[in-house]
Amino acid sequence: MSQRFKITLAYDGTNFAGFQAQPNQRTVQSVLEKAVNKMSKLDDYITVHGSGRTDSGVHALGQVVHFDFPHEMSANGMLRGLNSMLPLDCEVKACEIVDKDFHSRFTTHGKRYMYRVARGEFVNPFKRNYTGHYKFKLDVERIKQAMPDVEGTHDYSSFVASGSHVKSHVRTIYEATVREDKENDEIIFEFFGNGFLYNQVRIMVAVLLEIGNGRRDIHDFLRLYEVKDRNEARQTAPASGLYLKEVYYD
Amino acid sequence: MSQRFKITLAYDGTNFAGFQAQPNQRTVQSVLEKAVNKMSKLDDYITVHGSGRTDSGVHALGQVVHFDFPHEMSANGMLRGLNSMLPLDCEVKACEIVDKDFHSRFTTHGKRYMYRVARGEFVNPFKRNYTGHYKFKLDVERIKQAMPDVEGTHDYSSFVASGSHVKSHVRTIYEATVREDKENDEIIFEFFGNGFLYNQVRIMVAVLLEIGNGRRDIHDFLRLYEVKDRNEARQTAPASGLYLKEVYYD
Repeated sequence: MSQRFKITLAYDGTNFAGFQAQPNQRTVQSVLEKAVNKMSKLDDYITVHGSGRTDSGVHALGQVVHFDFPHEMSANGMLRGLNSMLPLDCEVKACEIVDKDFHSRFTTHGKRYMYRVARGEFVNPFKRNYTGHYKFKLDVERIKQAMPDVEGTHDYSSFVASGSHVKSHVRTIYEATVREDKENDEIIFEFFGNGFLYNQVRIMVAVLLEIGNGRRDIHDFLRLYEVKDRNEARQTAPASGLYLKEVYYD
Repeated sequence: MSQRFKITLAYDGTNFAGFQAQPNQRTVQSVLEKAVNKMSKLDDYITVHGSGRTDSGVHALGQVVHFDFPHEMSANGMLRGLNSMLPLDCEVKACEIVDKDFHSRFTTHGKRYMYRVARGEFVNPFKRNYTGHYKFKLDVERIKQAMPDVEGTHDYSSFVASGSHVKSHVRTIYEATVREDKENDEIIFEFFGNGFLYNQVRIMVAVLLEIGNGRRDIHDFLRLYEVKDRNEARQTAPASGLYLKEVYYD
């Protein structure tokens, strides 16, 4: 009888070609499957299932993955075993044994993303892989006034990358916040929603920064919901500032 | 008439083979000289002079470098010019034009190093290149009691890596401190002295951690000053936790 394990992962996305396994690429899924299969020592290959993909360079503080493991093992034993075999840019933060009806992708009811923007004229060497960077002037008060427009149920067609093939672009964002971290000269966005389209957070952040800079109206989101045109949102903030912070289940 | 520029540099040492130029290696000196010589556009090669070397993987928040530049240029023009050409893991934080009797190495009268130690059972993926890691128990109060022994003028022969060929191992440490950063689960050392031997800070940190763990007497530094034997200090803390924080001049 196999057991289903749910693990919560943190990873530094810098040296990964994203989450999803791809031929000849170092991905989070592939290093994790390598560790899991080394522990199972069976010929039957064990596939791990993530809550969703993250792109190359995108980080995770709390990605959730599940897989079925053929041997008896405690959750703590699995956590320690995996961490002893995983590379140092990927860490299992938590592990539990769950029912077989748990599925990392299908049973989630929300995700929280964080986006860090570093300010200042030049890129800080220690932040280059861990933040986006915006050197132009920013009026954070304007961004704060725009954030309520980001929340709610909307058709986010203007905020989806062209590679997306999902049927509906309607999603709900329960909470969208921005705060200044003055000590580190950063501004930090958080978005909590029932699901996100491909590149949606990075496109929304790019639009919010243009609002803060004064290049767009404070309430330009309302117009963008209407026009449903990706070309109107223009930019995509870099992957380096994006963190999958938490995935929610019942 | 050439001008002498003093620049203060921050760099993420992760992807550098240390400060000093070496054939076929990516070093801080080599990327900096490449940028400076690109700006001078002359056949005469301009060499830059650092306050001292840093090893592969060691970081700098305030390394100081000087060089003579053949053209008229403002300090701010030099700063912006260099930052536009340097790779993103190396940033000029400050630039000034100085007298010809300024020398980054010979006229310094002190340096300050910081060492960050991350605690916890597993390595945090976002800290692996930016901290040392100590997973064993630590009594920070024991370390605090040892810090006054680190200060003063001593023969640090027990704390010098075997590759060193300097004549005297006597140095003065004006200030040695440790503090806990509970929010980030780190302990942070700082050492301010008139000069440091090769690997001295990393060896001292390794000894201090063993004091904190209880494997050594609190006042083991006093014994180590007497025995003058590198084998007695044993370990060297990893490069990833070490930061050259500041170099002092009159």
